[in-house]
Amino acid sequence: MNAARPSRRGVLTGAAVVGAAGVGVGVSALAGRDTATTTATAAAAASTVAFHGARQAGIVTPAQESLVFAALDVTSRNPADLADVLQRWSEATATMTTGVPVGGPGGLGGAPGEPPQDTGEAHELPAANLTVTLGYGPSLFDERFGLAERRPANLEELPALPGEQLDPTKCGGDLCLQACADDPQVAFHAIRNLVRIGRGVVTVRWMQLGFGRTSTTSSTQATPRNLMGFKDGTANLRAEDTADLDRFVWVGGEGSPAVDQEWMRGGTYLVARRIRMLIESWDRASLREQERVIGRAKVSGAPLSGTGEFDALDLAKTSATGKPAIDVAAHVRLAAPETNGGMRMLRRGYSYTDGLDLATGQLDAGLFFIVFGNDPASQFVAVQRKLGAKDALTEYLKHTGSAIFACPPGISAGGSWGEGLFT
Amino acid sequence: MNAARPSRRGVLTGAAVVGAAGVGVGVSALAGRDTATTTATAAAAASTVAFHGARQAGIVTPAQESLVFAALDVTSRNPADLADVLQRWSEATATMTTGVPVGGPGGLGGAPGEPPQDTGEAHELPAANLTVTLGYGPSLFDERFGLAERRPANLEELPALPGEQLDPTKCGGDLCLQACADDPQVAFHAIRNLVRIGRGVVTVRWMQLGFGRTSTTSSTQATPRNLMGFKDGTANLRAEDTADLDRFVWVGGEGSPAVDQEWMRGGTYLVARRIRMLIESWDRASLREQERVIGRAKVSGAPLSGTGEFDALDLAKTSATGKPAIDVAAHVRLAAPETNGGMRMLRRGYSYTDGLDLATGQLDAGLFFIVFGNDPASQFVAVQRKLGAKDALTEYLKHTGSAIFACPPGISAGGSWGEGLFT
Repeated sequence: MNAARPSRRGVLTGAAVVGAAGVGVGVSALAGRDTATTTATAAAAASTVAFHGARQAGIVTPAQESLVFAALDVTSRNPADLADVLQRWSEATATMTTGVPVGGPGGLGGAPGEPPQDTGEAHELPAANLTVTLGYGPSLFDERFGLAERRPANLEELPALPGEQLDPTKCGGDLCLQACADDPQVAFHAIRNLVRIGRGVVTVRWMQLGFGRTSTTSSTQATPRNLMGFKDGTANLRAEDTADLDRFVWVGGEGSPAVDQEWMRGGTYLVARRIRMLIESWDRASLREQERVIGRAKVSGAPLSGTGEFDALDLAKTSATGKPAIDVAAHVRLAAPETNGGMRMLRRGYSYTDGLDLATGQLDAGLFFIVFGNDPASQFVAVQRKLGAKDALTEYLKHTGSAIFACPPGISAGGSWGEGLFT
Repeated sequence: MNAARPSRRGVLTGAAVVGAAGVGVGVSALAGRDTATTTATAAAAASTVAFHGARQAGIVTPAQESLVFAALDVTSRNPADLADVLQRWSEATATMTTGVPVGGPGGLGGAPGEPPQDTGEAHELPAANLTVTLGYGPSLFDERFGLAERRPANLEELPALPGEQLDPTKCGGDLCLQACADDPQVAFHAIRNLVRIGRGVVTVRWMQLGFGRTSTTSSTQATPRNLMGFKDGTANLRAEDTADLDRFVWVGGEGSPAVDQEWMRGGTYLVARRIRMLIESWDRASLREQERVIGRAKVSGAPLSGTGEFDALDLAKTSATGKPAIDVAAHVRLAAPETNGGMRMLRRGYSYTDGLDLATGQLDAGLFFIVFGNDPASQFVAVQRKLGAKDALTEYLKHTGSAIFACPPGISAGGSWGEGLFT
């Protein structure tokens, strides 16, 4: 398919995309691809995010438009099988992230009498800034693979948290693969082909599609809105906040907690939460109530203590009647670094909808929340405990899925995602 | 959110999009929207599809990237309630398709003490070529609303067909709303707000997201690929084929069957089929087998009787060994107009994935097939009977959802979708 897919948003934003190529985004050749024009080729190259590097891509990479997230279980009991899959996944991802089919440039790979090596649905599509990010779940470090001694202390199953109504079919996993791209077909293609490569060794445990990013991970990006209609991610960590990324995101970064497992140095932890929004209730709340609950103005995104989206929160400010401008139970107050000992996290969320919830007749839609940090217990878990107990937003949310993964550091060309853990 | 969402595909295709504005696409002002630059404003205007007109939009409109399809049931027993909802839906859709919130320009509508009129998640997003297309299901014409006499003879529940394994929770509906846009958040926003407007009168029966168009409905569009990795829609009817659209799509068009219900003149029928692909089996088939089953080359899309994608099928051509170049059971042979008395249909399909099928551990993914025609019994039903019995593709497919709807003609400014049926 089709360098000529029309997508209007992109027309507005070519400059922003090209600009983003400076922010830790590599540019690779698109060998073997048909592109309509020279301009198209140049633009396609600029839409490539380097797979190899000191960090995994897809963490501080400017958040792409679409997500396909898969949690997988390992069915083989042989660690060599898993190491082999990780090697093949690394090779295939290095290929796909340059916009080339799994089988290599020039076709889909394989002889006519064999199944094509690539499933083909992304053929001739640009790379669309595809990134694939790997993580290991706590269950991988059980007795099966002899990895118990290599489990980082921070990789613990999440404790029970307030506001949860977890569906076990949307929780956990030995591994995760987070594919992000500006074209959902490209993200789906990546996950499908990796799952196919892993057949016989891994199976999909659950999968989630996200259709609209709800975070900003780079100062080149405008703030999107979540399905509550509010701007989301205004105060998020960004790729440019390198000191805070070291301190709060990267394992072993300057100012970060001590490293207990060397193979995780340069990695991070990913917490995924499927947060259903009770949007029918939300839609019945008044604008005033919605803004009180969030602590920001709905249209502008400004904190209720200020006038501009990026104004700092003034948590002490009161109205003429002496009431706090930002309610004591407002989400922004309770989640702010100012009320959490200065702690920050890197959010990378996506909106989702999975159609109708047959049990209630209501839309199953909300936020697939992904957050990265080097100390989940003092970051996501601590904040969620507090939010669950006090946050006015809690009555409009239900956490229905949950998982935690350790994301190893990046790898260099020819390397394997598994090289740190398995050697 | 954000005129600055990066989407790489659009960068390639600005010219194509602007060019498409000539093909039955209206350009409207974007009152009350924040747009980043003058260029952005011009581009955003070009991304608007006129809602009002002789035909409903979203049928021959160049297929947008994303689909949100909702089937609804009417819970009120008062026809005036339904007529009122149809009027309010028409007004809201006229507004949203110009990129303006339901409440009108300048905000989200409503006083601070009231719920906002618009849910807000598409605020400041361009219209993204949003179209919403309405249809009436056969069940609407039962005894509830006194409409039995107004049911067109062609609006019949589909008969049982081969290859079906229907899930009743993904079938039927009194009404349908098909929202298509180049941004999934815009399409979701439209359906969500229409459902909200209809609360107390209609409820959602089922809903389907589609993430990659699998059809071409205009000669300005390149042919996309479906999840089998094959180009899909090469031989589809296009907006430019006006004589064939009259004959095969529009009710009352020149050469079309007689009109039995005047209110349907200028409308058409929509058949929706949720077609799951057994992609694990497909991925194990050899390239030769895949190409035999489809009848086209996988990479180029050329029929196996030719060399170029748009070469006409040569169904008589044989190889040196005397075997037909296009297999007797090939999908393109059995679906071709040449073997169906010259009959054509207008396809408008989307790829879907709904994650993991817990019963089988396999991906639930495939094609959400939408087809328009003025005589479904001799079009979709006749062809599907034949395909189900003979098509080599059938073993890789399972139809899991099904519905038929009568789509009334378009309306003029200030009109209501219901004006033909209810007056």
